[in-house]
Amino acid sequence: MSRLFDDLETAAPGTRVALDELIENARWNADGLMPAIAQQHDSGEVLMMAWMNAAALRETLQTGQVCYWSRSRQTFWRKGETSGQRQRLVEARLDCDGDTLLLKVEQTGPACHTGRRDCFYIRLSEENGEVDREPLIAPEALYGKPR
Amino acid sequence: MSRLFDDLETAAPGTRVALDELIENARWNADGLMPAIAQQHDSGEVLMMAWMNAAALRETLQTGQVCYWSRSRQTFWRKGETSGQRQRLVEARLDCDGDTLLLKVEQTGPACHTGRRDCFYIRLSEENGEVDREPLIAPEALYGKPR
Repeated sequence: MSRLFDDLETAAPGTRVALDELIENARWNADGLMPAIAQQHDSGEVLMMAWMNAAALRETLQTGQVCYWSRSRQTFWRKGETSGQRQRLVEARLDCDGDTLLLKVEQTGPACHTGRRDCFYIRLSEENGEVDREPLIAPEALYGKPR
Repeated sequence: MSRLFDDLETAAPGTRVALDELIENARWNADGLMPAIAQQHDSGEVLMMAWMNAAALRETLQTGQVCYWSRSRQTFWRKGETSGQRQRLVEARLDCDGDTLLLKVEQTGPACHTGRRDCFYIRLSEENGEVDREPLIAPEALYGKPR
């Protein structure tokens, strides 16, 4: 792990590091990506997890609108561009070893492409998983066609 | 993506799938791992993100104590085994495309190895990152030696 994150472990509150240096030392995966957790800023709901590269993170911090990297489409994914269900950035945080982002957001409507508020609707037990939430909005209404 | 998760998108609440089938169809990465987000169940704080393989997930669901897979040590990581800062599982959830876990937990003390409550203590802006929290407990007190 980068020495930078070791140093920050014991740094006094208020210690600052330039964004470029953080991005350079952060632990992006082999594809140059990092998981980003989106959490509704006031209710604390964990809405979804997606991926960012350095350019998506920079864009998000600059514009205040969350932009991920779509692994399936291999392109920027400006959340809500198609569905209108945007995420306004309230706060962005990086973790202790520089390999995970936490985004506190204001989520318009459902965050999940299925029309549910969040993506975590399969509750697990020792024996099974159970779908325990219905969509708030039909996906057709979000994307204009059946998926 | 597995057809199973497509089917679950529109499944009625109450629909159940055997855990074995979910685990078989889930989207583990090339190393057989999946990100798991740990959230304090009552306050909603996002504490940390770590990784699980299928065996760690099964153990967690069976024992009710969170067990990750340590990528650095390449072994099971029973959270709190060394530090005493255990995570009791309250609820486990899988997301819509079967590639991320959300664990609602009861966290004893700090979740972060630095002695902070959570791992996300580097707040980002367009220009820089700023450490904005101090440890609650010195890491030496958690692990019995300076790290």
